[in-house]
Formats: sequence, structure tokens, C-alpha cells
Amino acid sequence: MSAAKKAAIIGGGVIGGGWAARFMLNGWDVSVFDPDPEASRKIGEVLDNARRALPGLYDRALPPEGSLTFCENMAEAVADADWVQESVPERLDLKHRVHAELTRLAPATAVIGSSTSGFKPSELTQQGARVIVAHPFNPVYLLPLIELVGDADHCALAEPTLHEIGLYPLTVRKEIDAHIADRLLEAVWRECLWLVKDGIATTSEIDEAIRMGFGLRWAQMGIFETYRIAGGEAGMKHFMEQFGPALEWPWTKLMDVPEYTPELVDLIAGQSDAQSGHMSIRELERLRDDNLVGMMRALKKTGSGAGAVITAHEAQLTLPDATDLPVTVHRAIPQSWTDYNGHMNETHYVELGSQATDGFMALIGADAEYIAGGQSYFTTENTVRYLSELHAGDVVRVTTQVLVGEGKKMQLLHRIMRADGTLAATVKSFMLHVDLGARRSSLPAEAVAERLAQYTQAHAGMSAE
Amino acid sequence: MSAAKKAAIIGGGVIGGGWAARFMLNGWDVSVFDPDPEASRKIGEVLDNARRALPGLYDRALPPEGSLTFCENMAEAVADADWVQESVPERLDLKHRVHAELTRLAPATAVIGSSTSGFKPSELTQQGARVIVAHPFNPVYLLPLIELVGDADHCALAEPTLHEIGLYPLTVRKEIDAHIADRLLEAVWRECLWLVKDGIATTSEIDEAIRMGFGLRWAQMGIFETYRIAGGEAGMKHFMEQFGPALEWPWTKLMDVPEYTPELVDLIAGQSDAQSGHMSIRELERLRDDNLVGMMRALKKTGSGAGAVITAHEAQLTLPDATDLPVTVHRAIPQSWTDYNGHMNETHYVELGSQATDGFMALIGADAEYIAGGQSYFTTENTVRYLSELHAGDVVRVTTQVLVGEGKKMQLLHRIMRADGTLAATVKSFMLHVDLGARRSSLPAEAVAERLAQYTQAHAGMSAE
Repeated sequence: MSAAKKAAIIGGGVIGGGWAARFMLNGWDVSVFDPDPEASRKIGEVLDNARRALPGLYDRALPPEGSLTFCENMAEAVADADWVQESVPERLDLKHRVHAELTRLAPATAVIGSSTSGFKPSELTQQGARVIVAHPFNPVYLLPLIELVGDADHCALAEPTLHEIGLYPLTVRKEIDAHIADRLLEAVWRECLWLVKDGIATTSEIDEAIRMGFGLRWAQMGIFETYRIAGGEAGMKHFMEQFGPALEWPWTKLMDVPEYTPELVDLIAGQSDAQSGHMSIRELERLRDDNLVGMMRALKKTGSGAGAVITAHEAQLTLPDATDLPVTVHRAIPQSWTDYNGHMNETHYVELGSQATDGFMALIGADAEYIAGGQSYFTTENTVRYLSELHAGDVVRVTTQVLVGEGKKMQLLHRIMRADGTLAATVKSFMLHVDLGARRSSLPAEAVAERLAQYTQAHAGMSAE
Repeated sequence: MSAAKKAAIIGGGVIGGGWAARFMLNGWDVSVFDPDPEASRKIGEVLDNARRALPGLYDRALPPEGSLTFCENMAEAVADADWVQESVPERLDLKHRVHAELTRLAPATAVIGSSTSGFKPSELTQQGARVIVAHPFNPVYLLPLIELVGDADHCALAEPTLHEIGLYPLTVRKEIDAHIADRLLEAVWRECLWLVKDGIATTSEIDEAIRMGFGLRWAQMGIFETYRIAGGEAGMKHFMEQFGPALEWPWTKLMDVPEYTPELVDLIAGQSDAQSGHMSIRELERLRDDNLVGMMRALKKTGSGAGAVITAHEAQLTLPDATDLPVTVHRAIPQSWTDYNGHMNETHYVELGSQATDGFMALIGADAEYIAGGQSYFTTENTVRYLSELHAGDVVRVTTQVLVGEGKKMQLLHRIMRADGTLAATVKSFMLHVDLGARRSSLPAEAVAERLAQYTQAHAGMSAE
């Protein structure tokens, strides 16, 4: 096995710390040079965040973490480095001084990248330094984008390493102030300043206008593919012809607009065909919708943005009335629950069982408030019998029957049924009541025990098949 | 029970169809007026998409779908309507004609909304029409944002209905061309046209610059909360002082920038405090990270954008070598797998088991290629014993032991172990080999049967505890 690779981080802070974390968590050794006496604390905080978040992104474990060394000087930091990343403050004189040193000290084979958003490579290399722009986005340990700008060979050398540590290098064709993404951010930021200044909207309202709408679209397809869909079967050219004239309207206070020539329309429509032409508009729509549903369901877990809207709406949706047995779940199967076999994955039958247990717990008073008070039920055994396939869009209901309900013990039989009443699966769950502070089994509160006893009695003698 | 409410949709197409779908899937009856002979087909296509996607957003079933009626004239469509939504082409003379009719024909108690992005309410009401702007975002059946602009009482009347059908009304304080979101979109679109025209980037590269970076951030927090985090503990004012000067740089070709006065900085910093001041920067960072990980994991399911980057990176991550038993899973527990009890939900023990089964199937040659060829294994029974709690960030490995491997049958015992080797759970899975075309059990291919037999033999006599 070869020794770990080494990255030198020149300048800590949020961006340098993010690079350090990205490298370390991918098994690289990291040396930091930053004269700031707070550098170690600052990088430590970023590392804490990264260790908490990045490993959860993958369905495989990351390699063992590399080492972290704080160095007294730049020479020590860059010795034997495979990658040198500069993230010092955005002052050109400082960048020139640092890069003159890095070019002299770093191995000739090392990539030397600058995190600058403000300077073009031609500005960084004015005094002969060997450096490219490798511009990341915060949080660097999670977001994949790195804009590479500068010498083509140097950029080509950088690309494989960036892929290796899970990043997405985007090589910019020509240098330009602020590269690509920050130009777009800058345009929006300026428009936001106008909106706040003119009293049209507050910061909070502008954030909602973004994250409840186009922000969700852009997280998965960007702007051109989104508009290609808006153009429908008639295509990108149609969209541009329709949307184009709007550009001549007095929509913003910023008036310098490229002339909307047929050549520009053809250029964009042609690039859009090359980008997305392998999929029909219908296919793009469905991919977009699967992405939106999946992301909004993820946001529902944390209650952010569109996720909070779903939760509030869902609270208005009622469960069907009980017949013999209480209905504890009534829902559709999302596309994200299906797998390569074209049906609902075995995992989500247990998710339905878990939701049914939650529903039944609420019925006996072991609800969110009870749990917040420090008591709950933990499952100790589940037996799932898979009887027939379920597919995306199928609507199911789950009934819950008490098999055992005494003392600390509760055993439930959940029957997962299709809309036509046929059985798709059963989940038999055995649970113990738990004191959440002590993490030990305990007796339920009297009111819960009483309601459980009522169900136990009512269900006694029913078939458990 | 009261009769279903009624929405009148004036003008079909993608936007009108999206409104129709949103209302119908929330139990409203919908009447459509659109002289386009293709209207029925177009709305039908949007409805197909909506039926496929919207129900999967929720963990509760939506109410029974309302009816859809195509009307011969506007009077019929709007009779007894609770909501009238106009989505005709963006021509002011046409809008004036339609709204004069709607004001005359619609019940006085109905909300009358226009989907216009191009016109202000003062323009729509020039000739005395009763109408507000209710501007949606495509796909209307999924994205929550509706910008409301116009008469305050009329907007207030509209809000509860929008909440009821799962939307997020954002009332704009003062009318302005293009409302809020489209002003931001317009600013970005214009900058994108420059970038393509000047050969800096292609449409595809610009889309990657968005969806691999800030697009993900904006889907969950918008621009101001994101920058508040970038400001760190020093706060929004610090961020603005740091970032502000950049606005004076020649970053874009669009130069009319609001003057960056202390008053503007205070206004924005104060609004940001009101918006996000209840959370520390550390809390905001962790919420952001949980959101990013959750959304990127959702994108991994479809292979879009950042999700494809994760999959490619993951392919480089190897499993530990086998000792007695093959290691079929080695991974960290994501935050999104935990629940209100502060530990990994019972569901995801089965997800680990399912991943272990996938890993073992790959070992015996029943891999992705084999499945694409039309054969697979389906689980018929799972028994899960939950032995101890797992938490976000815990690294686990799963070993797999064959209990039965003959003919169509395969039974596996997956042991889920913490990093220290202690057992967290066992999943016993019983499976049948299946012909994916016939959806019936069948014998595995000879090569698979042989490799399964080798494992079966090697594991024979091992303890199944």
C-alpha cells in the first residue's frame, strides 16, 4: 500500500478548513499553515461539522481519516505535498506574496490551487507564479462544485484528484471576473438589494421566494434544462422565442442585455440539444418530478422550507375511520421507495410498519408529547412476511391489531393492504416500553397502559393470521 | 359532509393544467374553459404527471380526486366556482377581455387569480376588473410557491385556500414588474445569455455550475440565510461589510447597483436577525448540512446532478476484506435515518439488510448485469432482532452468512456490527429466485447456483446465533 497523499492548506478559516476536511475525510494527510492563532480552533469547528455530515452522504464507508498537522511556516507545510490550496484573504498584493513563495517551495509536480472568487488566473500569475484558480463553494466538505480556471495542463493535472475526493471539477473555457457561478450569484444579490431597499420584500420573503420555488428546480437541473422543459415538445428554441421578448421589458433596473439575435437563439438551442436531447420532454419532466419529490421529502425530515409546507398540509389529511381494527396508515408509495426490481424495496414495508406503530402509539396516548416527556416504545423484533409486490403510486392502508399488551410489553400485527383490500404484507412488531433518559425498559404511564388494555381486550380472540 | 369545492380554470396548457391537477388531487371539482382543441390532451398529460408525483410527497393519502369538466363557455366554467384561475397567454388586451368577463360572470365571493408573470395587478385592473395576481411556478402540482399581488382583502381571501391545497402563498408588499422570483430569474437568465454568447461556458456547463453548488443551497435556505452562515458568528453585518465591496467590482456587464449605504446594511442585517436570529450559526450550519445530505441522497436515487457525483465517488470506496464471513456493507449512519427517539429507526436496519443482500448477490454473480438480464431474488420473509441502538455517524459493518442455498431458495443471516465488533442487530432474510418477466419463482443461472453452493458449503456448520 502506498503512503497517504498530502495536501497543504495555506490559510484556514471556513474555506481552507472545508478543503482540509474534504481531503482528510478522504484519507489524505493535511498540513496547515495559517499565522492566525485561532486557526486551529476554526478548522476544528469545520472538521466537526464535516465529520458529522460527509460520511452520511455515502452508502459506503470513507477510508480511514488522514492526519492533521499545523506547521510553523509555509516551507514545512508544502514539503512533499501533492496538492497545495491557498485560501488567504482576497487582497491581490497578499496573493502575489504567498504565491511567489508557494511556487518556489512546492514540489514541481504539485497542483497549486487558489480558492479566490475575486481574481482571474492572469492576475494571480502576473509575477510568474505557478497557480490555477480552484474555486470551491461553502460548505466545501459537501458541495461538489470546483471551478477550475487557468493553464490547461495544470487544470488537467488537478481534475483526477478532485474526482478522487468526491468533487466535481468544472473547467471554465475563458477566464472572466468572478468565474461562472459567482457571476450568477452576484446578479441575484444585486437584484435582492434593490428589492429590500425599495421595500418590495424582506430578506425572509426573498428567501421563501427562492426555496419554495426555483431553488428546488435548480438543485437538480439548473436553469437551461429547466427552461427546456418549460418549452415543452416544441423545444428550447420555442421557449426562447416565447421568453426572449421579456428580456426587453423594464423588469429590472439593470439594462445591459445581449442582443437577442437568431444566432444567439440557435447557439443556445443547439447547446441545449447537445445537453439534454437524449431525453424526451416527458422523460425530463418525470426525472424532474422524482427529484423534486425526493428532495422535498428529505426537507420534510428537517422541517425546512418546502418540507415544512408538506408537514402542515399533511396534518389536514385524515385517516379513514376504523372498522374492526384501527387504520394507522393510509398513503401512496413514493417512487423513491422502489428499487432495481421495479417494486417497493423490502425496507419500506418496515417503514410502513414503523409508521403504523407511530399511529397506534398516538391512539393510546404515547404520542409526540408523551415522547417529548421522556417515554417511548422501542422495537426489539420485527417479522415481515412479503406476500405481494407494491409499486410506485399504489395506495395502501395499514390496520393494526394488538397481540400482546401487558406491562412493558406490546406486540402489534400490522396488515398492509392494497386499495382493493388484498393483503400485500404483514409486519409483526414486538416492543418494549422505554425510559428515554435511562435508555432502559420501564412501565408505561397509567393512562397509556389503560388505553392499551382496552385495545388488547377488544382484539383478544381475533385471528392473528 | 359538504359538497366538493369548485375551481374554474381559464386557459389550459402547462400552467393551467398544473393548477387543475393541484386542485383535483386535493379533492376539488375542476371546470376548464379553453378554446384550444388540444386543451383536453394537454391537461391530461399534466394530470398524468401530477398523479404520478404528488401523492408520493406525503405520508398520508390525499382525499379522493375531484371531477374534471370541460366547458363550452366561460359562464358555465365559473358558475358556483370558489376559485377562478386565469392562465391565458401574456397579452394585456386578451387579459383585459377575459377579466372583464370573469368579473361579470364569477360569484362575487370567488377568488379570481391571474397566473401572469408579466403584468402588475394595476395593469390587469385598469378597466375595473376584480382580480389579483396569483403567480405559480412550474410544476404547479409540486412547487409550493404562489406570489400573491394586489388588493389586500382579495389576497387575504386567497391565502387559506392556497394553504388548504398544499401551496405556500407569499404576499408581495408592493407591486413591481415581474413580482419577486422572476426578477431574480431574469437577472440570472440575462447573465447566462452573456456567458454563452461570450463563449465562457455552454448551457450544460452553466447548469452544472448551478446544480453542483449554489442551487443545492438555495433549495433549502435561499440566499440571505445562506450568506448569514457565511458571515459566521460575526453575523450578517460582517458578511455584508466583507462582501459588499465586491459589488463595486466590474463583475458583470450590468452596472446599476444600489448605493451600499450604512442604512441599507443595517436594514438587511436587521431583517436577517428577525428571520434567523433564533438559531446560532452552528445550528444553522448543521441544519443546512442535514438538508444538503438529505437532498443529495435523494438525487443519488435518480442519478441527477450531485447524486451522480456521489455514486461515482462511492464506486471507488472498497469493502473490507472478508475474514470468516464476507463483509457486505461498511458504512456510516446518515442523520436522515434517525427518528424522534434519537436513534436509527427500525426501518433502516432492514435497509442495511437489503444492502447486505445486494452485496452478497453481487458476490455470487447475481449482480446489476444479471438483474438487467431479467433474473433476481425477491425477499419473502425478514426477521429482525434489534439488540442495541445505533446513532447518526456510527460506522457499521455487516457480515453475511448463508443458512440455506439450494434450488430457488436462499436464506441469509446478516449481522450488523458496530466498529468495536459488538452486535447491533441481526436480519434473517429468506428469498426466492425470480424470473422478472414472469414475476414467478425460478431456478438461478448455473453460474450463480454454483457460487451460492460454494458459500453454502463454506458456511455449513457455522453457528446461526
